[in-house]
Amino acid sequence: MTDNQHIFRFRVAYSDTDQMGVMHHSNYLKYFEMARHEFLKGLSISYAEIEEGGVIMPVIQANVDYKKPVFYDQVISIETCIILNKGPRIVFGASMINESKEVVCTSKISLAYVKQTSRKACFPPAIIKSKLINIKN
Amino acid sequence: MTDNQHIFRFRVAYSDTDQMGVMHHSNYLKYFEMARHEFLKGLSISYAEIEEGGVIMPVIQANVDYKKPVFYDQVISIETCIILNKGPRIVFGASMINESKEVVCTSKISLAYVKQTSRKACFPPAIIKSKLINIKN
Amino acid sequence: MTDNQHIFRFRVAYSDTDQMGVMHHSNYLKYFEMARHEFLKGLSISYAEIEEGGVIMPVIQANVDYKKPVFYDQVISIETCIILNKGPRIVFGASMINESKEVVCTSKISLAYVKQTSRKACFPPAIIKSKLINIKN
Amino acid sequence: MTDNQHIFRFRVAYSDTDQMGVMHHSNYLKYFEMARHEFLKGLSISYAEIEEGGVIMPVIQANVDYKKPVFYDQVISIETCIILNKGPRIVFGASMINESKEVVCTSKISLAYVKQTSRKACFPPAIIKSKLINIKN
Repeated sequence: MTDNQHIFRFRVAYSDTDQMGVMHHSNYLKYFEMARHEFLKGLSISYAEIEEGGVIMPVIQANVDYKKPVFYDQVISIETCIILNKGPRIVFGASMINESKEVVCTSKISLAYVKQTSRKACFPPAIIKSKLINIKN
Repeated sequence: MTDNQHIFRFRVAYSDTDQMGVMHHSNYLKYFEMARHEFLKGLSISYAEIEEGGVIMPVIQANVDYKKPVFYDQVISIETCIILNKGPRIVFGASMINESKEVVCTSKISLAYVKQTSRKACFPPAIIKSKLINIKN
Repeated sequence: MTDNQHIFRFRVAYSDTDQMGVMHHSNYLKYFEMARHEFLKGLSISYAEIEEGGVIMPVIQANVDYKKPVFYDQVISIETCIILNKGPRIVFGASMINESKEVVCTSKISLAYVKQTSRKACFPPAIIKSKLINIKN
Repeated sequence: MTDNQHIFRFRVAYSDTDQMGVMHHSNYLKYFEMARHEFLKGLSISYAEIEEGGVIMPVIQANVDYKKPVFYDQVISIETCIILNKGPRIVFGASMINESKEVVCTSKISLAYVKQTSRKACFPPAIIKSKLINIKN
């Protein structure tokens, strides 16, 4: 992992819970995505601008380890980092941490660079290349 | 209401529930939308084709009455009808009915016809006009 | 409306959008709910504690007017107020406002007080009564 | 993998899409869950009854490979199977297949058996043991 880290915080919404009384496992992916986008902003990379430039970044692989339940109204922090950025693929690592400093969930999520019009894999846009050049893999 | 009715059935998913142990109120709107799209198909109108023709139909008003709770794994039926189709607006009425034939929720949802490129209100596409001509308002 | 107002802010998530390129209409209800819960906290009322006390507050009616589209990554403010708090029912009004100070959506959402065990309507818990006594209806 | 297979079908909802014009990656998990529950029903195991018996089955690990985009209104099939059922853990494999018989997504999802009251890992309930006894791992 690199030393480029960013912390994103959110409060678990009532609508995130299911009848087990915990955050439903599908909702974690939404928060990891928000954290990634804020992480990129911290590197002066706007995901909105990437899309305006004609490149989309679909998730191609998600590996999620749910370690402890997450409850309504808890404040959760997500630490995001880049694990790999090579060719048409970028891989993010992330950890969710609760208010008691426990790691409640970790993820490794891979995204592709894809041309919006052709839906074919492509190389990262210039903005990504220039900003991420110093991130060692 | 007109006599054009269509019944759509779905099973309440686990992910639809919240920690009250019932379907979260936001999820009803997703099922009313699915029921609308299937209702239109019953009139040989494909929402996908409307969008391909450059018109989108955003929801501009939603009035929902939640009458009884809906639980995980129940099979729910939705009856949809058109209440009004006039100018740049179409209004759908719908009722959700549970397996005990109880009305659990009703809705009145208004959609606009909007040009995708300009995001301005427009008249209904020809397909809508020709198929809905016999529906009395 | 009363003068008890509270502002809640959120950033539109990528997962909130649909293929129209705007926030899907069902997701507004999730944010109005978050705003309500934060509004209640501003009055020293914790929804979590209400539930721990055995009372749930299901939504029984939702009236939503979608006035302008809301886009990915916009920061939206929600102003919430109490319109009515009488018997087994409380009604909240709310407005969503975008960064250009435009009202993009308004809602009037009614909730019931319900005993969790019996699922029957009940009177508001003491905490609600004591905190909301000064709110004129 | 075992030869216990079950096919679940669903139609991609408009609300499942995001502004990329494809099903958002978080929504796949909801459909894999529905497919699991229907798969268990095919083995005469009701997830609702497991919960009524005081055992919940939270997802503890999800590995998802998104291979091809999934679009609004497509009919998608999910084939589910049990990969492992050992001790306090059960692992499901699943494939999503589109109308052109292409595998669009695969997943390996692990669930734990947990006592609802104590939230501690436990052994599978009797119903699971008796029904799954013939499934070789």
